[in-house]
Amino acid sequence: MFASTFKRQAVNAVRFQSTFTIPTKQMGVIFETHGGPLEYKEIPVPVPKPTEILINVKYSGVCHTDLHAWKGDWPLAAKLPLVGGHEGAGVVVAKGSSVTNFEIGDLAGIKWLNGSCMSCEFCEQGDEANCEKADLSGYTHDGSFQQYATADAIQAAKIPKGTDLAEVSPILCAGVTVYKALKTADLRAGQWVAISGAAGGLGSLAVQYAKAMGLRVLGIDGGKGKKELFESCGGDVFIDFTKYPRGEVAQMNADIKAATNGLGPHGVINVSVSEAAISQSCEYVRSTGKVVLVGLPAGAVCKSEVFQHVVKSLQIKGSYVGNRADTREALEFFNDGKVRSPNKVVGLSKLAEIYSLMEQGKILGRYVVDTSC
Amino acid sequence: MFASTFKRQAVNAVRFQSTFTIPTKQMGVIFETHGGPLEYKEIPVPVPKPTEILINVKYSGVCHTDLHAWKGDWPLAAKLPLVGGHEGAGVVVAKGSSVTNFEIGDLAGIKWLNGSCMSCEFCEQGDEANCEKADLSGYTHDGSFQQYATADAIQAAKIPKGTDLAEVSPILCAGVTVYKALKTADLRAGQWVAISGAAGGLGSLAVQYAKAMGLRVLGIDGGKGKKELFESCGGDVFIDFTKYPRGEVAQMNADIKAATNGLGPHGVINVSVSEAAISQSCEYVRSTGKVVLVGLPAGAVCKSEVFQHVVKSLQIKGSYVGNRADTREALEFFNDGKVRSPNKVVGLSKLAEIYSLMEQGKILGRYVVDTSC
Amino acid sequence: MFASTFKRQAVNAVRFQSTFTIPTKQMGVIFETHGGPLEYKEIPVPVPKPTEILINVKYSGVCHTDLHAWKGDWPLAAKLPLVGGHEGAGVVVAKGSSVTNFEIGDLAGIKWLNGSCMSCEFCEQGDEANCEKADLSGYTHDGSFQQYATADAIQAAKIPKGTDLAEVSPILCAGVTVYKALKTADLRAGQWVAISGAAGGLGSLAVQYAKAMGLRVLGIDGGKGKKELFESCGGDVFIDFTKYPRGEVAQMNADIKAATNGLGPHGVINVSVSEAAISQSCEYVRSTGKVVLVGLPAGAVCKSEVFQHVVKSLQIKGSYVGNRADTREALEFFNDGKVRSPNKVVGLSKLAEIYSLMEQGKILGRYVVDTSC
Amino acid sequence: MFASTFKRQAVNAVRFQSTFTIPTKQMGVIFETHGGPLEYKEIPVPVPKPTEILINVKYSGVCHTDLHAWKGDWPLAAKLPLVGGHEGAGVVVAKGSSVTNFEIGDLAGIKWLNGSCMSCEFCEQGDEANCEKADLSGYTHDGSFQQYATADAIQAAKIPKGTDLAEVSPILCAGVTVYKALKTADLRAGQWVAISGAAGGLGSLAVQYAKAMGLRVLGIDGGKGKKELFESCGGDVFIDFTKYPRGEVAQMNADIKAATNGLGPHGVINVSVSEAAISQSCEYVRSTGKVVLVGLPAGAVCKSEVFQHVVKSLQIKGSYVGNRADTREALEFFNDGKVRSPNKVVGLSKLAEIYSLMEQGKILGRYVVDTSC
Repeated sequence: MFASTFKRQAVNAVRFQSTFTIPTKQMGVIFETHGGPLEYKEIPVPVPKPTEILINVKYSGVCHTDLHAWKGDWPLAAKLPLVGGHEGAGVVVAKGSSVTNFEIGDLAGIKWLNGSCMSCEFCEQGDEANCEKADLSGYTHDGSFQQYATADAIQAAKIPKGTDLAEVSPILCAGVTVYKALKTADLRAGQWVAISGAAGGLGSLAVQYAKAMGLRVLGIDGGKGKKELFESCGGDVFIDFTKYPRGEVAQMNADIKAATNGLGPHGVINVSVSEAAISQSCEYVRSTGKVVLVGLPAGAVCKSEVFQHVVKSLQIKGSYVGNRADTREALEFFNDGKVRSPNKVVGLSKLAEIYSLMEQGKILGRYVVDTSC
Repeated sequence: MFASTFKRQAVNAVRFQSTFTIPTKQMGVIFETHGGPLEYKEIPVPVPKPTEILINVKYSGVCHTDLHAWKGDWPLAAKLPLVGGHEGAGVVVAKGSSVTNFEIGDLAGIKWLNGSCMSCEFCEQGDEANCEKADLSGYTHDGSFQQYATADAIQAAKIPKGTDLAEVSPILCAGVTVYKALKTADLRAGQWVAISGAAGGLGSLAVQYAKAMGLRVLGIDGGKGKKELFESCGGDVFIDFTKYPRGEVAQMNADIKAATNGLGPHGVINVSVSEAAISQSCEYVRSTGKVVLVGLPAGAVCKSEVFQHVVKSLQIKGSYVGNRADTREALEFFNDGKVRSPNKVVGLSKLAEIYSLMEQGKILGRYVVDTSC
Repeated sequence: MFASTFKRQAVNAVRFQSTFTIPTKQMGVIFETHGGPLEYKEIPVPVPKPTEILINVKYSGVCHTDLHAWKGDWPLAAKLPLVGGHEGAGVVVAKGSSVTNFEIGDLAGIKWLNGSCMSCEFCEQGDEANCEKADLSGYTHDGSFQQYATADAIQAAKIPKGTDLAEVSPILCAGVTVYKALKTADLRAGQWVAISGAAGGLGSLAVQYAKAMGLRVLGIDGGKGKKELFESCGGDVFIDFTKYPRGEVAQMNADIKAATNGLGPHGVINVSVSEAAISQSCEYVRSTGKVVLVGLPAGAVCKSEVFQHVVKSLQIKGSYVGNRADTREALEFFNDGKVRSPNKVVGLSKLAEIYSLMEQGKILGRYVVDTSC
Repeated sequence: MFASTFKRQAVNAVRFQSTFTIPTKQMGVIFETHGGPLEYKEIPVPVPKPTEILINVKYSGVCHTDLHAWKGDWPLAAKLPLVGGHEGAGVVVAKGSSVTNFEIGDLAGIKWLNGSCMSCEFCEQGDEANCEKADLSGYTHDGSFQQYATADAIQAAKIPKGTDLAEVSPILCAGVTVYKALKTADLRAGQWVAISGAAGGLGSLAVQYAKAMGLRVLGIDGGKGKKELFESCGGDVFIDFTKYPRGEVAQMNADIKAATNGLGPHGVINVSVSEAAISQSCEYVRSTGKVVLVGLPAGAVCKSEVFQHVVKSLQIKGSYVGNRADTREALEFFNDGKVRSPNKVVGLSKLAEIYSLMEQGKILGRYVVDTSC
């Protein structure tokens, strides 16, 4: 498999430095068309640009976004053929000549935002994800579902030596995303935040981050075992929406308010992808409160009554992915042990099966793929 | 009309101080039921509480909210019978024993928020309008469509001696409201703001405030003379929506973006009461931009696509009325001559006719009533 | 002055309501001149204004500010004769006719800011303590070192039923002050804050608040038992300044930086009253960091090198006492059990002895006086 | 060092693209030791890295910082030998292979911050100037006092076609610096800002920016013609400090307060390099006001009384140079004609003479050098 290593290194000698032996071919999962076969096969190892690092990906989380990238059902064009994945953790094995912030052997993470122009208005203000030239891992740039992937050195995440790479991988997207959403809610320690979808993959991370930030957390979710999971993450008050039959939304809102000083939560993080739940959050949120949208249900519309929106002085804020600072901070909470990210590890070769389970809504918790098998 | 002044003063001697001769009866416009007759007749002069001032109202602006109060078509209970009006400017003629911030003879203004508890979470943070005990002029507290009205001394506006009371009156609600909306948009001097409904009563004030704040202003409105009015207020770029036939929303959005560095305005102030215009503003606003809701079209719903809301990291912010600081600041711009508020003055006795014109949508500019006739 | 309770109640019947029997005389500590005798004797019970409540003070904390008020060594005029004290907790026994936010029998707290004009620029923006008409408990308004004291209803603190009034009393000033200082530092959960003077009365509260806010806390103090006290409050890293002989400031700064990611703390709360410690904090704070001044050493000057101040983009922020929102929030942390305030209770009649110990620097922890003995 | 242009271009063919003919030698001013001869002589043209652009500098402003760099009197090591200058405006004539945000032929500006690591905590939050690896034009990186200079593409300023390059050059440092200071003061349109040193090079720019931001401006300066200059920039109220003999600081403070609603300015921008003026600004600033330090008088110390600092809740904020966003914004005000930057143009060969005048304090206004002569 790694026959022509020598030749490859010669070619790239002037372009990047490495003390690792880097193969020219590797195993990865690639698809040629949206919805087409997800093939686990031998593909070329990419070559880093002067500003990129080459990461030997050890583990990668699998996210719903990866499913959307494969299906092509978002109003955003993806590259084809494509190697998906944007929660990759591994080792820096090579770097371009302009890279000064990574050394060979460092641990590094691949996240959704692979690179951006760094000189537009959005990049200047730390909103790199909003850059019109944003390069997205596993979407417009081959991602972490391969053994070797390139990442812009400025955007790649720094991971301390000794970190459990399987456990940290979902932090790189799921963790950063909910942390960013909590920052977007702009709450003070001691205030109430509601997490709609509190016992899912994003939700259980959101609860942990919220507690580490000193917030009081009300979780909303439904079904068996959800309350226990929520409480094991440190959540304070759980509302099981399955206990409110149709037409009892008013009672559910009243119960949420009663649990939060009678006024409702100061902020709501909507990680749930239910359109109705999103609109309902505008009802139970406290006056002057902040409703944060995170989940991306295809085709969904957020609706709020103008009268209440104005008279309650609400804010509905979209929160996309984290920037470099958000990523560093989210990782620090993980590194400090304040946030745990349990997951199930399977071989990269099983990716198509994970997608299948995901489509059927049968996934509980986070899957992480091991790129070595 | 002022027969029993002597007796009245005796009764109130321990309750408030005054060097003015205050009648016990006065002329005002009152209605007993929603939609019922608007009677211009003799009514009692109210007595201020220890924490209130009594204002001899000279002029009062007439606002769409007054029409809603009369019709009773908002989901918020009003007192009945009711004297409307919440843009009153006049002279302090008496004050309660606990009032220390007004002297008899000072000029003062009556605004929408007449009083609040000052000790709940909202009052504490300067969001008095969101107080659950908010007392509203011309809605839950008899307002400025009478010659003498009471106002909580803490909330009453201070107006410098020598001010033109007819011209300043609409600033007390319309001016403060658009200034607050601009503050809510949280823009920096040099950024672009779009005013949707730029040539109406609120809009033309919004354009002037925006310019005084150093913003670049794009105005959206339609019809004859609107562009000229917008430009006379200092606006930079005008978009006439009547030039875009049905189905050309995309072209209109493109033109708005082209006029604002290609990226769209950083903020939008929706003073228009068109539901479609509100939702459209989520499309042309710049990524990371702020859409502010101000106008209160009955029953309207603000809709935004969740995907765009998140990926563009938008904020949709409701902006209600200004607080004490907003009021002081909005008046300072007026006092400095940076904002003008042209209006048409008629006698208070003609109020029913103004309401009628307003219902028919025949009002151009702001009406102000003179309480003396 | 008041002949009997009966007559007194009759006189005040129109002014306040009460179901308690209120005496006309009470015991309190009063002084006629700065530095003069602190007499524990019978004095009149004050009468609340329409906007005030009358509190039957049960316990009051004793603060260094009380010592300054008695000595008269601050550049701020106090009233004379004066009853000191501004950390009083008790029961509402009467209220003025305009008071709507307290009921007879509620628990209430007296804090440093007794009242303010509520209508100046500072009051409007929540900076009531900066009001030019600020009325200060135990300084310009007789305070909590008496059995019955008046407080402006808007400013008085709300205390939930069932609260331990002795333990909560120091929260009303010491707790609120350090909480406000931490808010002034404007840090994010996960960042480093240094508390200079971490094991003193203010410091140990500051450490607990900082931890509850999700911060990482480095404490600086010196002497026996200080490290243990700091750690019992939840602090992370302790620096004992006594281990750095003269001339080793550079080493101490280096050790502080080493303990805080190599860059120094993001913020410093100076509760220490050492002038040298304050200036040193400008050296070890991280670039773009915030140095907060809280302690008020008489005559001290804060010095910072302009070059470093600019190149490191530092902020030196004065933090005075908390406003209504700060007070409510600080109490919530206490009510939730996240902050404890151990203290030593003695009779109010022993106040002069406490002042004496305080002057000699012999106080460890907080004293609270019981007004009943 | 380079034998011929031809060979040089061949060597660099893989490294950067250019349609301009770039010489290997050029004229510039270089010095070998601090305080040593400032030689105008032939030096090599630098070669851009993959991430850099090569700018054919047409004009460069001359700043006091350049004098400090030459003298070596700041506590910050400079490279030697050194080509100074950090306000250069010119044309992009070549670019490294990784540069995507500039095209050959674009206009570009060189500013103080030439480049930074873009991945540390400071760079992540837009505080690139505080990066520990900050690369400074005319200080640690050869600057704009030469015909061809390299600049990091991410940090280089974008200048629209058609701009007067001589006039814009001082905006790149002086303009950006005062604009950043005004942003640091964090004031609202309508508030009062004092500019201490209002009629100097930085001050006259600060007055113009402040007016464009909607502020009311009080200027402080002294001497003939200063008031007229201040007013020509749009300033509102001028205080001539020479009219207050020694000992009349209190009167001057009183006059400043009287001119600003009786409370003092909400913010002060200290562009003056007088240590006494800096400390005085802590006295006349309004409570809760912001004192901004900008000027860098060698060895100066900012002193404020702790008592006033706390009780007035002041902030003293160091403001260094602007970041990418500040630069873009400052240039937009200039491009819109809201800020003018008059200057005197002389040949680069006369630089030593300008330094000499500067040392003697004989400079009025800004000098700009033409690199062609």
